[in-house]
Amino acid sequence: MRGVMMHAPGDVRVEERQDPKIVEPTDAVIRLSASCVCGSDLWPYRGVEEVTSAVPMGHEYVGVVEEAGGEVTTVRPGQFVVGSFWASDNTCENCRAGYQSACVHRTLMGTLGAQAERLRVPLADGTLVATPDTPPQDLVPSLLAASDVLGTGWFGAVAAQAGPGRTVVVVGDGAVGLCAVTAARQLGAERIIAMSRHEPRQRLAREFGATDIVTERGDEGVARIKDLTGGLGAHSTVEAVGTEQSMTQAVRATRPGGHVGFVGVAHGVALPMEELFFSLVHLHGGPAPVRQYLPHLIDLIWNRTIDPGKVFDLTLPLDQAAEGYRAMDERRAIKTLLSV
Amino acid sequence: MRGVMMHAPGDVRVEERQDPKIVEPTDAVIRLSASCVCGSDLWPYRGVEEVTSAVPMGHEYVGVVEEAGGEVTTVRPGQFVVGSFWASDNTCENCRAGYQSACVHRTLMGTLGAQAERLRVPLADGTLVATPDTPPQDLVPSLLAASDVLGTGWFGAVAAQAGPGRTVVVVGDGAVGLCAVTAARQLGAERIIAMSRHEPRQRLAREFGATDIVTERGDEGVARIKDLTGGLGAHSTVEAVGTEQSMTQAVRATRPGGHVGFVGVAHGVALPMEELFFSLVHLHGGPAPVRQYLPHLIDLIWNRTIDPGKVFDLTLPLDQAAEGYRAMDERRAIKTLLSV
Repeated sequence: MRGVMMHAPGDVRVEERQDPKIVEPTDAVIRLSASCVCGSDLWPYRGVEEVTSAVPMGHEYVGVVEEAGGEVTTVRPGQFVVGSFWASDNTCENCRAGYQSACVHRTLMGTLGAQAERLRVPLADGTLVATPDTPPQDLVPSLLAASDVLGTGWFGAVAAQAGPGRTVVVVGDGAVGLCAVTAARQLGAERIIAMSRHEPRQRLAREFGATDIVTERGDEGVARIKDLTGGLGAHSTVEAVGTEQSMTQAVRATRPGGHVGFVGVAHGVALPMEELFFSLVHLHGGPAPVRQYLPHLIDLIWNRTIDPGKVFDLTLPLDQAAEGYRAMDERRAIKTLLSV
Repeated sequence: MRGVMMHAPGDVRVEERQDPKIVEPTDAVIRLSASCVCGSDLWPYRGVEEVTSAVPMGHEYVGVVEEAGGEVTTVRPGQFVVGSFWASDNTCENCRAGYQSACVHRTLMGTLGAQAERLRVPLADGTLVATPDTPPQDLVPSLLAASDVLGTGWFGAVAAQAGPGRTVVVVGDGAVGLCAVTAARQLGAERIIAMSRHEPRQRLAREFGATDIVTERGDEGVARIKDLTGGLGAHSTVEAVGTEQSMTQAVRATRPGGHVGFVGVAHGVALPMEELFFSLVHLHGGPAPVRQYLPHLIDLIWNRTIDPGKVFDLTLPLDQAAEGYRAMDERRAIKTLLSV
């Protein structure tokens, strides 16, 4: 089958790879309908994460079950499924606490390479959720978004305790940030302030439910948020970038006792504890337990309540994956869908 | 009147200071019954915080109202009162959210100097809580503890979501850590693990409700906690030290989705965000909103349900404050009470 390999920073190729097979009786093999390029795929692409040998890429996926191992009971061949970017058993104590991304048997799907024609999914019962039926084609992008960016934005909004009566700030206008806006809206937030200086992303943020846009950054951005919140700061802030500036901005934009949900993957960022101490904010984040939210997210998409698939502003066939990476790296695209 | 002044690191003197007076109509002046030396007083004493000129010391206090300003309505002369180390109006939006330590009109009591015979308390209505009656002498140390260390330990335990069914780890065996053990017990924690290698403090921790003692520190300490919690880590961890080692130890000892409450004042500590990200813990802490808890804490002390005054293992007259600082600096005393 064909699949994406990264050989070095900036060097992405679509190559012949071995067809995946059932290895464990808890595995399933799925034929992918679509995959995509993640913001986190840009870390090795840009050389921020080391690439020591050619590696398969991709961890976001939807598709049809082709084969299920002997112990798989909740999905069967022919079903359309959505999975999380962590494979998880969904039965261990961490999973039952809602932290499937910390499952004691977890496997990072990225190591298996979902930017491909087929994919082996370990712990299929715990990882995959079947849709009610084969989805109409126009729902596929949104279901794909649920696999990571929507689930991650959702976790950010939940970690920030977005909800009724609360003012929510979203730092970061990438696909995850935009999905956090959708999530905050669904969770009932009263006011949603998107921090963005890119006109097309501002438009999408408004479409997803943002009530205000702040274009300033850093301390100026914080001052704007304070202006908009009676001098106190937001109740909830979602940090969806992962830099020192964005973390600091998120903490400072939040009122004492407020909540910062951070889902940007931090690289080499250290947070001064004195700043956090005197801010009196709550901080929670990390790799999103997408699996926890999948049934609800599929439902919202199936009923056409939300349309997170709009974050895909570039669709390319799998063979043109290299251009998909380039477009995101150069910020010509928010997120690239690879149709298989 | 006499009061403590710090002239330079290590140089603490009891001197004649001007008698405090009502300045604002919302002030009260109290005659102190007792004050004490705080772990945080040791930061300037040890030169970790700069001392540029002689400053009055002390922010923990109980005493009898001598005079109340014209706008004070909730306390009156003759009443015995306990106050928080932050003066707060208890009516602003931050106060009503339970964060009196972030009151928009807050004043740090330390700047007024509570290690003295008398003290001006700003925002008396919001800051002070009267006891049901003049307390018997043996309750005074516990009521004094409520002014800071008990309230701070309590906040740490609340921030760590100590409660029924949860295993709580307390990092730090100072007065705040020991009070966090008491708090965790009152909040209904199932298991309370105190990390301590000092026999007298271990004994007090057990008396306050610790079910287990772990003497190892750092990664070895974390490994012990994992052993005691089925490999997962604690549900709740209170960090009551404020160093990089203690913060790291607290985060690593906590399971994914668990809660770290940090109340140790961090000095120059930076937390690697990648570690926090992948830990998936909740983090909350800062200067404790003691005022929020005072009515409940006074109640528990008045009914003799808790006895946090036991953290005072050295009592000296105010005039011997210098020896009180020395004893804590050299770890000969957990906490020094200064009787006035």
